[in-house]
Amino acid sequence: MSEKIIDELKASIRSIPDFPKKGILFRDITTLLKDAQKFKDTVDLIADKYKNKKIDKVVAVEARGFIFGGALAYKLGAAFIPIRKKGKLPAEVLEATYELEYGTDTLQVHRDAIGAQDKILIVDDLLATGGTVKATCELIEKSGAEIVGIEFLIELVELNGREKLTGYPVDAVIKF
Amino acid sequence: MSEKIIDELKASIRSIPDFPKKGILFRDITTLLKDAQKFKDTVDLIADKYKNKKIDKVVAVEARGFIFGGALAYKLGAAFIPIRKKGKLPAEVLEATYELEYGTDTLQVHRDAIGAQDKILIVDDLLATGGTVKATCELIEKSGAEIVGIEFLIELVELNGREKLTGYPVDAVIKF
Repeated sequence: MSEKIIDELKASIRSIPDFPKKGILFRDITTLLKDAQKFKDTVDLIADKYKNKKIDKVVAVEARGFIFGGALAYKLGAAFIPIRKKGKLPAEVLEATYELEYGTDTLQVHRDAIGAQDKILIVDDLLATGGTVKATCELIEKSGAEIVGIEFLIELVELNGREKLTGYPVDAVIKF
Repeated sequence: MSEKIIDELKASIRSIPDFPKKGILFRDITTLLKDAQKFKDTVDLIADKYKNKKIDKVVAVEARGFIFGGALAYKLGAAFIPIRKKGKLPAEVLEATYELEYGTDTLQVHRDAIGAQDKILIVDDLLATGGTVKATCELIEKSGAEIVGIEFLIELVELNGREKLTGYPVDAVIKF
């Protein structure tokens, strides 16, 4: 049953060559999002795994991560904690830096957003090289909270992002 | 009942002076989002108004709009359509430009995302001068779809954003 649903979700992802630059095959989730049933199925599939895990807070990275993150926080009765690029959050922050192909980027979370007792679910749309999610894990661990799960809509398996996340419970709905 | 809830939601918004620049009083929604009950109350308050309106698609602007947009699409059984800054969407787009204090900015939506028969709910976190939402309305109208409602978490009343949205059904949960 759920395998059939997953096959249909995977078939709904649009693949666009050479975006954002030559040689990249971009996996476009907007063709899944614009199908109400498929959006609901995706959220329900992930939420089902966590409904008895007492998740306090869903953590997601801007911008696409907020779409599933917001829906899952609502569905699980959890709070929503945004991780943002440097300079967007107005109060005191924790930050973590990660490597890009050229240079680095910095993610921030409000220092008062996560407590040491919190059970956390991290949600993002795409696991590629894993840099942003690894930085997100570092931010959460600075607060002492427990990472109960890390869930992606899509995993690009050949990029080995999971290697950066060794020791964490990682899963993805769709694998390419 | 719901007035008491709205007062509590309003009290949970953190106000930060001089962010992102001197003279701006920033209304920080992260202090609402990190309270699971308040996040749920906000989504339920908005969803209640639209539960019998047969909304096909929830449209939201990156990045903060995606948080409530994703939750509301899920709750209403609707699709989710992201509006993004120029250059982020990989397929063929419609676009609309709006004025900033200095210069202009451009929003895009995938051309295949919205059809002429669709009933649309637009969701955003903040109504300030109304520029981004006005541009979003223009994008939706290019597709011929019907804008059933425009919902904000917060309206900054003195900035008169509603004047730009005359003729549309606009509402906000919290007014400052």
